[in-house]
Amino acid sequence: MVNGKKLNQIIIKILKKKGLSSKHSKICSKAIINAELVGAHSHGLSRLKMYCDRIHKKIINPKPKIKIKKISQSISQVDANNSIGFVAADIGIKQAIKNAKKTGIGLVGIKNSGHYGLSGYYAEQAVKKNLIAFCFTNAPPAIAPHGARKSLFGTNPICFGTPTSSKIPFILDTSVSLINRGKIRLAAKTGKKIPEGVALDKFGRPTTDAKKALKGIQLPIAGFRGSGLAWMVDILSGVFTGGNHGGKVKDPFDDFSGPQNIGHLFFVMKPNLFVGNYSQRIKENIKRIKRLPKIKNVKEILYPGQNKQRRYKKNLYKKINIPKNIAKDLKKLDA
Amino acid sequence: MVNGKKLNQIIIKILKKKGLSSKHSKICSKAIINAELVGAHSHGLSRLKMYCDRIHKKIINPKPKIKIKKISQSISQVDANNSIGFVAADIGIKQAIKNAKKTGIGLVGIKNSGHYGLSGYYAEQAVKKNLIAFCFTNAPPAIAPHGARKSLFGTNPICFGTPTSSKIPFILDTSVSLINRGKIRLAAKTGKKIPEGVALDKFGRPTTDAKKALKGIQLPIAGFRGSGLAWMVDILSGVFTGGNHGGKVKDPFDDFSGPQNIGHLFFVMKPNLFVGNYSQRIKENIKRIKRLPKIKNVKEILYPGQNKQRRYKKNLYKKINIPKNIAKDLKKLDA
Repeated sequence: MVNGKKLNQIIIKILKKKGLSSKHSKICSKAIINAELVGAHSHGLSRLKMYCDRIHKKIINPKPKIKIKKISQSISQVDANNSIGFVAADIGIKQAIKNAKKTGIGLVGIKNSGHYGLSGYYAEQAVKKNLIAFCFTNAPPAIAPHGARKSLFGTNPICFGTPTSSKIPFILDTSVSLINRGKIRLAAKTGKKIPEGVALDKFGRPTTDAKKALKGIQLPIAGFRGSGLAWMVDILSGVFTGGNHGGKVKDPFDDFSGPQNIGHLFFVMKPNLFVGNYSQRIKENIKRIKRLPKIKNVKEILYPGQNKQRRYKKNLYKKINIPKNIAKDLKKLDA
Repeated sequence: MVNGKKLNQIIIKILKKKGLSSKHSKICSKAIINAELVGAHSHGLSRLKMYCDRIHKKIINPKPKIKIKKISQSISQVDANNSIGFVAADIGIKQAIKNAKKTGIGLVGIKNSGHYGLSGYYAEQAVKKNLIAFCFTNAPPAIAPHGARKSLFGTNPICFGTPTSSKIPFILDTSVSLINRGKIRLAAKTGKKIPEGVALDKFGRPTTDAKKALKGIQLPIAGFRGSGLAWMVDILSGVFTGGNHGGKVKDPFDDFSGPQNIGHLFFVMKPNLFVGNYSQRIKENIKRIKRLPKIKNVKEILYPGQNKQRRYKKNLYKKINIPKNIAKDLKKLDA
């Protein structure tokens, strides 16, 4: 157990020691701690050692020369020069916000990036500036295309955020796999089982063994529909941006043969482009849905992101629990 | 059985008799026949009587004064003045294409529209002009939000299209319900059963009876994920554009108390914004996926839209089969 402030210092110290600038270390630490606070442990501390290993092997560039190219007033491209994903995404979303504030819409394609943590974290940055946001990223192979018996698509999240007129943003951040790959990794690391029906082993047999699932196939949501959505995200974030695609994104934990070159696509819009009273309209929309009759044992109908925000608030002033094996990693890295 | 040319004449004649201009009648007929040719019968002829009934009751405006408002070089708003959805969407996608050709991206919000048939039909128009396209529309209540026991969201499709460098476009057009509402309607009309596990009756019990399903709830794909995606589409196409939302879109078959005021959102982009060789990249992407090892009994891995295109080609020079009850409707309308 450690408090957030102390943990922040530790992470920053570790990353600076690895060669990251103070500014970049802070960006990373903030994203990692946010993942812990919202309960997305699979996207938090459990990845720090991996990031450090990749920096050590020179496949994450600790001192990237990130280039922002202006395509138009609304459109920009970021070449992240193999930076750690957090930094590339932070620069990217800030540029998308800037463009949208100026012209109503901001579109930013990012290439030569890496795993950036939670998509929702970037969408939230835009939503806090009163903007609507889409964030797409691809990821290493985890899901088999419909009809194939080999993984190729990542869990490729679809992330959409909008202001709600309340303090709690609407942030849908859903992978198109039945289970988050990070959760399987965490289960493998902590020796826990995964739910039934979400993955197959490498022989195509259903498995609840996290390690076997990692070597096998994760199942997409809704068969060909989920497979199609994963394909769409691969095209948008990989083919379109200039990033890797079609199964070429390397697994950051297992494959140290080169940089990931993940692509991200951020699309941000002003909510009042077509209506003068978006804030009132979204408030009414949410109100109508929340007052529907509920199914048994459901106390409240929640919109996407609400639960996460509650966990964040609950955890904000508490100490952060660190599993033993991760604490051991941290100690080594901080030595 | 009737050939396409003859059917086209019949539909145009019927719609002109209802007061639509020759131009608008042609737009509608083309979309309806396209739905028949791709095998989406639920979005084709089976709706013609409904459209005519709504025109008759003055809740579809046969002579709309459609206004296109320029928000910026990239962004336009269409007020469809309660036109039939086909016409509003046709004008909308053409405007989005125009904007994208000029500035790289085109965003068009449409309000005061109605049911427009297949989203993929509009995405395809953009793709044929070598553009990437998103099409969103909301629809009358069919899916219950996660935790609710009453339908509110429409089947709210997510539609994405991209050029492929081959003649067959990549068109993902997937509703977020386990089954297309149109398919349930058609089953109800033709007395067929629907698959198990896709819908509940109004008491919350599983049903395969299409009529009971129409009065009950359709289940979303993947539980809260599908529910969240449906909510996203309702926000984008309704809250954002100025259309109805939050369950206010009327069922076109059952509710004649006023216009639907459906909203649509089209977002179109040039594929070469970030890379010079998109066409080569997407070709490589599809090639890599198609050559994956296949599961038993799968001959070929298909990308979204490929099957539909094959049906279209197969049906193009064949006569179109018209179910008895629909033929009866047509005869009456054409009398």
